[in-house]
Amino acid sequence: MRYAIGVDLGGTSLRVAAVDEAGHVLDRVSLPVRTLAGREAVVETLCEAARSLIAKYQARGALAGVGVGVPGIIYLDTGRLRQSPNLPGWENYPVRDEIEQRLGVRVILDNDANAAALGEKWRGAGRDVDSLCLITLGTGVGGGLICHGRIWHGFLGMAGELGHITVAENGVRCGCGNIGCLETETSATAVARKAKQAMEEGRSPALSRASEPGQPLTAEAVCRCAEAGDPACREIYESLGRTLGIGVAGLVNALNLPLYVIGGGVAEAWGQFSPALFEELRRRSYVFAEGRTRVEKSPLRGEGGLLGAAYLALQRDAPGLT
Amino acid sequence: MRYAIGVDLGGTSLRVAAVDEAGHVLDRVSLPVRTLAGREAVVETLCEAARSLIAKYQARGALAGVGVGVPGIIYLDTGRLRQSPNLPGWENYPVRDEIEQRLGVRVILDNDANAAALGEKWRGAGRDVDSLCLITLGTGVGGGLICHGRIWHGFLGMAGELGHITVAENGVRCGCGNIGCLETETSATAVARKAKQAMEEGRSPALSRASEPGQPLTAEAVCRCAEAGDPACREIYESLGRTLGIGVAGLVNALNLPLYVIGGGVAEAWGQFSPALFEELRRRSYVFAEGRTRVEKSPLRGEGGLLGAAYLALQRDAPGLT
Repeated sequence: MRYAIGVDLGGTSLRVAAVDEAGHVLDRVSLPVRTLAGREAVVETLCEAARSLIAKYQARGALAGVGVGVPGIIYLDTGRLRQSPNLPGWENYPVRDEIEQRLGVRVILDNDANAAALGEKWRGAGRDVDSLCLITLGTGVGGGLICHGRIWHGFLGMAGELGHITVAENGVRCGCGNIGCLETETSATAVARKAKQAMEEGRSPALSRASEPGQPLTAEAVCRCAEAGDPACREIYESLGRTLGIGVAGLVNALNLPLYVIGGGVAEAWGQFSPALFEELRRRSYVFAEGRTRVEKSPLRGEGGLLGAAYLALQRDAPGLT
Repeated sequence: MRYAIGVDLGGTSLRVAAVDEAGHVLDRVSLPVRTLAGREAVVETLCEAARSLIAKYQARGALAGVGVGVPGIIYLDTGRLRQSPNLPGWENYPVRDEIEQRLGVRVILDNDANAAALGEKWRGAGRDVDSLCLITLGTGVGGGLICHGRIWHGFLGMAGELGHITVAENGVRCGCGNIGCLETETSATAVARKAKQAMEEGRSPALSRASEPGQPLTAEAVCRCAEAGDPACREIYESLGRTLGIGVAGLVNALNLPLYVIGGGVAEAWGQFSPALFEELRRRSYVFAEGRTRVEKSPLRGEGGLLGAAYLALQRDAPGLT
């Protein structure tokens, strides 16, 4: 048996798993990320978790390596972080080499959404296709493209920045400098922003009842209110589906991939936003209307990044810039 | 010397050229397309032109085949047209086999914008890159993607429908069923529509003077008036640059290709629309703002489709679905 260690390093949590080459998660560890403790402390926590898993499984198989998905843009050649809003202070930190030196095994670093897209190809919605696009709707909105079974990195390693495609030319200002990005309309942050506004304007009695004083509104709470029939919350998710439809329709028209997967925490509200998403897709893409393009919710329940990270290491030929 | 016959078959004109493997156009023929005479008559005209070029060059080299770029969506496996608004009545016509039978040589059929994108890679702006995107601004707006030197067809052969990406979520109705497509905002047809409106509203005295009674306004005439300083015509091209910028920024963020080429007749107004295009790109794509992504006017002066069609036949391995 060959196995690999997959790591999903986020801004608030760190997940480390041992995954065999059939895609079974043998074991996993979830830890908080204390960004304030500094990057060396986070890397050491990561390596400790990896070491304990390796110690447990090394007698049962050959370790193929460690794959790490990190939020942000990566210099693929040097294994450094180019920029990462969720890991402040990590810019230009040689995170790949640091982990490699501490563990003494091959480490492959990639963007977290790219890793999650690879996870979908390997063990998720894309097992029977060669190419796919993943859009992750979380705190931010990320994306990954798989072309002929491999991550499409683009010439600077910056491909898949799907959260910053314009979907509302006169929309809300985004942290990236643009206005009306997919991220400002369809992230969990966007849902919470719109819900706060609806509450403040007295448009959502259900949310006012459900929200706890001093606690921030969550996209999940808004989804529960929408499911319970609150019109303002329903409208928030319907609008999310429409703007997601504009973005996905553009990708369908441009790329004509067989599969587009919607992942991330917000995807759990699929029932609330998917009717508007499909309506917009049929209207805005005659390629989609042709009938064979699949647009689906990720079946991996947030495990795609972890699985894809492990698969990065399990691929026999280390992926380069494609 | 190896050479090929390249054919650019449009809704109104047909161009046939003999092209050698170094990319030199040895000879060319331009003919009107009499769509009303029927598809067999058009194909016979095409074959006559090809025959005369082959007769002239067969003693000087080996014919690699005939490449044909056609407007519309193609079934790549059968060489039939799936749909083609500019060639009415050609749906499901086995155009590839008809030409092959008449000429007795290998024929490779592809979408005209795909062929033009390949022409850019071979002999145009993309000679030094591996991957690129071409957007053609003509009567309609088309597109082609080259990935690792080959046309990206998508799983149904429908990739590159860049004219139907939404750039104005509440824009003008497009023939494809969508509203606010790149095509309804940046085609020559869009320029003429906006100019007609400006004239009717008395906003462009220059256009009123320049237009001839009974003659339709052309994008070229609007460009000349813009160059002469007419504010309404300038605004038409500035707005075109902005909406093109929204579309290209999305592609830059998603694909991170090294090069995006703007071709088609409207690209000749580059000086009028490119400042707004670049302003919008810097604002809407931090991948572009990073500085190394090239966005350029096609240097091929409308020859890209013809060159790319010839190159389809010159490639030793016939391109399949990629």
